[in-house]
Amino acid sequence: MTWSCLNLDRQKGIDVLFNPKSIAVIGASSTKGKLGNDVVRNLIDSGFEGRVYPINPKGGEILGLKAFRSVSEVAGEIDVAVIVIPAKYVLPVIEECGQKGVTALVIITAGFKEIGHEGQEAEKKIVEIAEKYDMIVQGPNCLGIVNTFAPYNASFAAGTPEKGSVAFASQSGALMTGILDWSLMEKIGFSKFVSLGNKAQLDETDFVESFGRDPDSNFILLYIESVVDGKKFMEACRKIAPHKPIYVVKSGVSTAGARAASSHTGSLAGSDTAYSVAFKQCGVIRADSMSELFDVANVFDDCHLPGGNRVAIVTNAGGPGIITTDAVEMSGLAMAKFSPSTIETMKKGLPSAASVYNPVDALGTAQPQDYALCVDATLQDENVDAVLVLLTPQAMTKETETAQVIVESKKKYPTKPLLAVFMGGNSMTYPRIVLNEGGIPVFDFPERAVNAIAELYRYTVVRDSLKDETPPKFKVDKKRVKEIIKHVRNDHRRVMLGSEAHVIAEAYGIRVARTQLATSAEEAQAIAAEIGFPVVMKIASPDIVHKSDIGGLMIGLKSEEEVKNAFLQILDNVRTHVPRAVVYGVDVQEMAMKGKELIIGCSRDIQFGPLIMFGAGGIFVNYLKDVSFRLAPMTRSDASDLIAETKMGTLLQGVRGEEPSDIDAIADTILRISQLVCDFKEIVELDINPAFAYEKGNGVIAVDVKITIGGE
Amino acid sequence: MTWSCLNLDRQKGIDVLFNPKSIAVIGASSTKGKLGNDVVRNLIDSGFEGRVYPINPKGGEILGLKAFRSVSEVAGEIDVAVIVIPAKYVLPVIEECGQKGVTALVIITAGFKEIGHEGQEAEKKIVEIAEKYDMIVQGPNCLGIVNTFAPYNASFAAGTPEKGSVAFASQSGALMTGILDWSLMEKIGFSKFVSLGNKAQLDETDFVESFGRDPDSNFILLYIESVVDGKKFMEACRKIAPHKPIYVVKSGVSTAGARAASSHTGSLAGSDTAYSVAFKQCGVIRADSMSELFDVANVFDDCHLPGGNRVAIVTNAGGPGIITTDAVEMSGLAMAKFSPSTIETMKKGLPSAASVYNPVDALGTAQPQDYALCVDATLQDENVDAVLVLLTPQAMTKETETAQVIVESKKKYPTKPLLAVFMGGNSMTYPRIVLNEGGIPVFDFPERAVNAIAELYRYTVVRDSLKDETPPKFKVDKKRVKEIIKHVRNDHRRVMLGSEAHVIAEAYGIRVARTQLATSAEEAQAIAAEIGFPVVMKIASPDIVHKSDIGGLMIGLKSEEEVKNAFLQILDNVRTHVPRAVVYGVDVQEMAMKGKELIIGCSRDIQFGPLIMFGAGGIFVNYLKDVSFRLAPMTRSDASDLIAETKMGTLLQGVRGEEPSDIDAIADTILRISQLVCDFKEIVELDINPAFAYEKGNGVIAVDVKITIGGE
Repeated sequence: MTWSCLNLDRQKGIDVLFNPKSIAVIGASSTKGKLGNDVVRNLIDSGFEGRVYPINPKGGEILGLKAFRSVSEVAGEIDVAVIVIPAKYVLPVIEECGQKGVTALVIITAGFKEIGHEGQEAEKKIVEIAEKYDMIVQGPNCLGIVNTFAPYNASFAAGTPEKGSVAFASQSGALMTGILDWSLMEKIGFSKFVSLGNKAQLDETDFVESFGRDPDSNFILLYIESVVDGKKFMEACRKIAPHKPIYVVKSGVSTAGARAASSHTGSLAGSDTAYSVAFKQCGVIRADSMSELFDVANVFDDCHLPGGNRVAIVTNAGGPGIITTDAVEMSGLAMAKFSPSTIETMKKGLPSAASVYNPVDALGTAQPQDYALCVDATLQDENVDAVLVLLTPQAMTKETETAQVIVESKKKYPTKPLLAVFMGGNSMTYPRIVLNEGGIPVFDFPERAVNAIAELYRYTVVRDSLKDETPPKFKVDKKRVKEIIKHVRNDHRRVMLGSEAHVIAEAYGIRVARTQLATSAEEAQAIAAEIGFPVVMKIASPDIVHKSDIGGLMIGLKSEEEVKNAFLQILDNVRTHVPRAVVYGVDVQEMAMKGKELIIGCSRDIQFGPLIMFGAGGIFVNYLKDVSFRLAPMTRSDASDLIAETKMGTLLQGVRGEEPSDIDAIADTILRISQLVCDFKEIVELDINPAFAYEKGNGVIAVDVKITIGGE
Repeated sequence: MTWSCLNLDRQKGIDVLFNPKSIAVIGASSTKGKLGNDVVRNLIDSGFEGRVYPINPKGGEILGLKAFRSVSEVAGEIDVAVIVIPAKYVLPVIEECGQKGVTALVIITAGFKEIGHEGQEAEKKIVEIAEKYDMIVQGPNCLGIVNTFAPYNASFAAGTPEKGSVAFASQSGALMTGILDWSLMEKIGFSKFVSLGNKAQLDETDFVESFGRDPDSNFILLYIESVVDGKKFMEACRKIAPHKPIYVVKSGVSTAGARAASSHTGSLAGSDTAYSVAFKQCGVIRADSMSELFDVANVFDDCHLPGGNRVAIVTNAGGPGIITTDAVEMSGLAMAKFSPSTIETMKKGLPSAASVYNPVDALGTAQPQDYALCVDATLQDENVDAVLVLLTPQAMTKETETAQVIVESKKKYPTKPLLAVFMGGNSMTYPRIVLNEGGIPVFDFPERAVNAIAELYRYTVVRDSLKDETPPKFKVDKKRVKEIIKHVRNDHRRVMLGSEAHVIAEAYGIRVARTQLATSAEEAQAIAAEIGFPVVMKIASPDIVHKSDIGGLMIGLKSEEEVKNAFLQILDNVRTHVPRAVVYGVDVQEMAMKGKELIIGCSRDIQFGPLIMFGAGGIFVNYLKDVSFRLAPMTRSDASDLIAETKMGTLLQGVRGEEPSDIDAIADTILRISQLVCDFKEIVELDINPAFAYEKGNGVIAVDVKITIGGE
C-alpha cells in the first residue's frame, strides 16, 4: 500500500520513535516505585536490544546500567529521549536534547496543559524548542510507548503487552493500564501501544497514519476524547480504512454540551453528531463502549475477517442457544443454513434427540468428542462464515477437555472466525485460559460474543462501501454571493433577509420560489401583480425566526386587495407580538405548488466544518426528527446515502402507488448547498425549510431559505 | 402484604415444596456422576434437616442413608418426591406417590414434551394422575429446586447457591447451572432457585406468586421462553410489582416468526411486541440480555434501592471518568451535584490538582485513604443517590487495600448503593474477591456498572408509576354489534364492509363519518343528496385492502353528476386492477373536515389477547412507524401513556403555536375500542385509519373503519 503522507517528516520521526537504536531515560532512577525506575526496567524487561542511557544528575549505576549526568555526557547518538523529570526542569532538558541531535521525545512528565494556563504556555514552548531542532514530541503527560515487534517498552506501564496485530493509541494513559492488564489475562496481542497524552505535537492522526503504514499492525484501535484536526484525521483514515479496520471510542459525548443554535440544523445536530458523521464518512467504526472496544481487540487479534454474516451456533443447552439466536438476528447477522453433508455428519455422530440444525444442540450430555464433531463440521461448511461455541457447566460437562478440542479445531480451520462462550464462574476459569492461549476469544455471556462477530462483519461492510469518489463541482455565481454577504455585513446584520438568501441559493443553481421585498403596501401589490397570483407574504425581519407562529406569514393571497390587506395585517401582527423586531418590510413570494416537504440545512462544527442536514421538512421538523447528517464537501454517493437514511427517503421513492419524487434533483440541491458552504466559510447556518420536491423530472423548489453569517 | 391468590391450593403445595419436612429421591443412586447421586448429595451438603429417603429398587445404603425399595416402603410421611428415574418408569411411580400421600413432585426426568407427541401425551398423564391425588408437579425435564433458607437443595446442580435475597426461576436448566457457577464466584446470594422445566403444571406464574409472598425474597428474576397463561401472569405480577421488583429475560424474540396480518396494526406489531407491552403494563422490567439479568441480580442482592438518579463517580483516572459520565447521562441517570461540605472535605484532603467536582478525580497517585475520604464524603452527601468507584491499575495504585477501604465505607453507609469498577485483569482478581465478599458489586467495565445502577433506579420509577385503576365501562349497544357480526357470518365473509364496520364503531359511541352503501349510481346520488355535498366515495369490497392504490377512492365530489361519474369510474378502476374482487357496491361518505390524521387499531395476540395500537395515521403509517401499543382492557392512564409515547402525541399537544387537539376525545375513542374488542372476541383485527382529530372540544371522527372477524 502506498500513499502520500500528510506530514512526511513526522512520519520519518515516528519510524525512529518506534524502532530506536538508542534511548536515553532522562530522570532514570534506581529507586523502585519511581516512574524513572519503571521505565528503565520496562526497557530491559521488554528485551530492547539497542543502547539504554539512564540519565540522572547523580550518575552511578541504575539497574545495572551506567547512568549519565546529562544527555550531553553520552558519547553515542540518542534516537529517543524519554523524559520523566519534574515539569519545571523539562524546558532546558529539551533544549539539551535538541543540541544533542535527539530525533524523538517521549515526555511522560505531567503538569502542563492539564493544570491550566501556565502549563499550556510551557507546553507551547516545548513544541517550539523541539521544532527548532526538528524533534518530534509524544505527550507530555503520557504513559509512554511500546512496540512489541522491536521489541521495546518505553513506558511506566505495569508490564509489556503480548505481541500481536492490534495497534492501539489512547488519549487516556490510565485506561491503557487497565486494558493492558486485561489483555495479559485474555491473551490479546498488540503490535503498538501508544499513550497520546496532551498531544502537544504528535496527535491521533500522526499515529493512525503510522499504524496504517505498519506491516505488523492489522487493526487500529483508538480511544480519544477529541480530535486535534478533524479534516486531517478524516483524510488519513479514509486512506487506511479500505485496508485496515479502524475502531474508535470517542468519549466526552455528554460533557461537550449543547451548542447554541438558531437554525433547525444547529438544534437537531447534537454536540457529538459531527464526530459520528465524520467517522462514518471516512470509514472509521465507532464503538459504543470500552467493553466493546476491548472485545473488538480480542477478536481482531485472534480472528480473520468473516466472508459474510452467516453464524453457526454449537451448544449443549437449548436456552442459551435461543438467547444467542436472538442476539444473532438482532445484530445484523444471520443464522447459517447448513449444507446437507454437515447435517448428515452431525446426525450420524450425535444422539437422536440432538438438534443438528442451527443452533446445533448437542444436548446436556455432550462430551468433548461431540463438540469436536460439531465444531469441525460447521467450520468446514461453506455456508458458515463464523462459528460460536457455547458451553454451560452441566452434570456431565468436561469443561477443560472441551476447550482443548475447540483449540484443535481452530488449528485445523484457522481462517474462519471461531469464538467461544463458556458460561459460568470458577469452573470456567481454567478452560478460559486454555481457549485464550489457543487463540480463541472467549466470553462470559453470549450477547458480547455475538456483538464481537457483528463488529468483525461490520468492518467488511464498511470497507466494501467505501468509494473513491470526488465531490462534484457545479458552475456557480460566486461573485453574486460575495456581493450579498458584503451588503449584509455593511448593514451590520448576521441574519439575511429572505430575499437575500434566495438570491444566494439561486446563484448556486438552486431553484427558488421567486421572492421580492416590499417596503410598502403599494410596492407589494406591484410585485404580486408581476409575479402572478396567488402569492405568499412573509415578514422580512432578521429578528423573527418562526414567522408563522406570530402571524408573520400569509398564504394564498389572490388579489391586489388581499395583498394590500395582508401587508398591513402582517405588520400589525408583528408589532403586537414582537414589538422590538427590526422590520425591513414584507417579502412577496410566488406561491409554489405544494410537494413533499423537505428540509436541507447546514450548521458548522468547530472540528469538522460544514455539517449538512437533510430530512422531512415543514413546521414540525423538530418534532418529527426525521433527519440525517453528512459533512461537506459531499460526493454523489454521500448525497444518495444521506437521503436514503431518512424515512422521507423511503417516501420519496414512491410508496402506496405514488409516483417517485425527483431524488436526483434533491441530491443535486444538497450537493449545491455543500459547495456553497464550502466556498463561503462566512455562512455559519443555513436552512431551506421547506423545499418542495415534485415527481421525478419536475425538480425541487426552495420555498424558504434562511442564512446566518458569522463575524468577520 | 396480603392479596387473594390465583390458586390457593397450588400455593399451599408450593409452600410445602419449598419447606418440606421429608423428601424421597426416587432413583437415588450410590454411583457418583449419576443424577440420582447428585441430588442426594446436594440434599445432604445443603444442610437439609428433614428426613431424606433414597428410593432404589436395590435398597441398601446410599451416601450413608438407608435406601428404600419404593415409597410405599417408607414408614413416615413424604412431603416431596424428587423423581430421577428414566421416563418410561415415571407414570406408575407417580401413581404410587399419590397413594402414599406425597404433596409435591419434582420431576427431573427428561424425555417428555421436548421429544415430541408421545412425550407430550405422557406429560399430560403425569398431570392427570397428580391432580387426582392433589399433588403439585414441578417439571418434568428440570434441574430441581433450591431454598437456601430451609436450607434445602433438591437439584443436580453443581453446588448450592449462597443465601441471599434474590428469587430466581428459569425455563432453562442449563442456564441456571451457568448462573449458579457465576454467582458462587461473584458472591451473589439467592433465596429460591427454581428450574421450571417443561411447566407441565406449575408454571412461572405459580412461582412468581410464591416469590411475591415470600418474606425471604426481595427481588424476583425470571428467564422464560414463553408464558403459559398471559392474563394470569399479568394479574399476579401487577400485584407484586409495587412491592418487589420483577425482572425477566424473555428469549425467543427471533424464533417466534412474524405473524400473518392483513391490518396495519397486525403488521406493525412484531411477534414479540405483546410480551414487551404486557411486561410494561404489569410492572415487569424486561432485561435485554443474560448479562444484564445477571448484573441486576448482583446489584439487587447487595444494594438497597436508590432514592433518586443522582450518581457520584470517584476515580483515579480522567479518561474512565469521562466514559462513565457519558454512560451515566445516556442511561437516564444524572451526575450528582455535591453539597458544599462534600466539596470542602475533599478539597482539604486531596492534592490541589485533583478534581473535587463530579466525576471526582483523586489522581493517578490516589492512595487507599484518598479513596476512603472521597467515598465516605460522597456516600454521606444527601445530593447523591448512588456512588460508583472506579480504579485503574496505575504505578502507585494499591488495588487490594483500596478494595478494603471501600468495603469499610460500605459498612459505615450500608443503605446507599455503592458499586465498583476495577478495570484490569490479573491484578484485579484478588481485589474483586475482597469487594464481592464485602457486598459490593464489582464490574470490569464502567458501562455495565452504570447500567446496573440504572436498572435499580428504573424499578423505583416503574413502581411509582403503577396505578390501581380499573378500565372505564362505557354504555354501548352490544346488541347492534352482535347483529352485524351475525349478518357478516351469514354472508360467509371475514372482512366487514365499510358501512358495517362504521355501524359497529357507532354502536360503541365512536363518532364516525356518515357512510352508506350504494349499489347503483342512482342510489349513490340519493345518498349523497341526503348526506350533503361534498362526499367521498369508496369501493365496498372485502377483497380490496388499500383502496386508494387502485383508484377505489374518490374525494371531494360536489354534485349528483360527479357522484354518478365517480360511481362508474370506481367500478371501472376496480374491474381493471382487481378483476376478481367481489364488489358489494360503493360506499358514499360524508366528507369530514381534515384534522390530524391518526390510526387506532387492534390485533390479537395468542397469549395476551387484544393488542391496541395508536399513532400517526394516513397512507404512510407503515413508513412512518410512529405507533405504540397497549393490551386491552385499558385504563385511562394506559390510554394517556399510549398517546404520549408517540411523536404524534407531542404534536397533538399543540406545538409551533397550534391549538392543542382533543386528546381527551382521542383517549375516549381508544378506550371504547378497547372495550369493543374485549366484548367481542370475534373481532380479530380492527383498523381506524384515518381518524381525524380536531382542536380541543371538537372531538375525533373515524373516517375509515376496517374490521375482520375470526372463524366461529
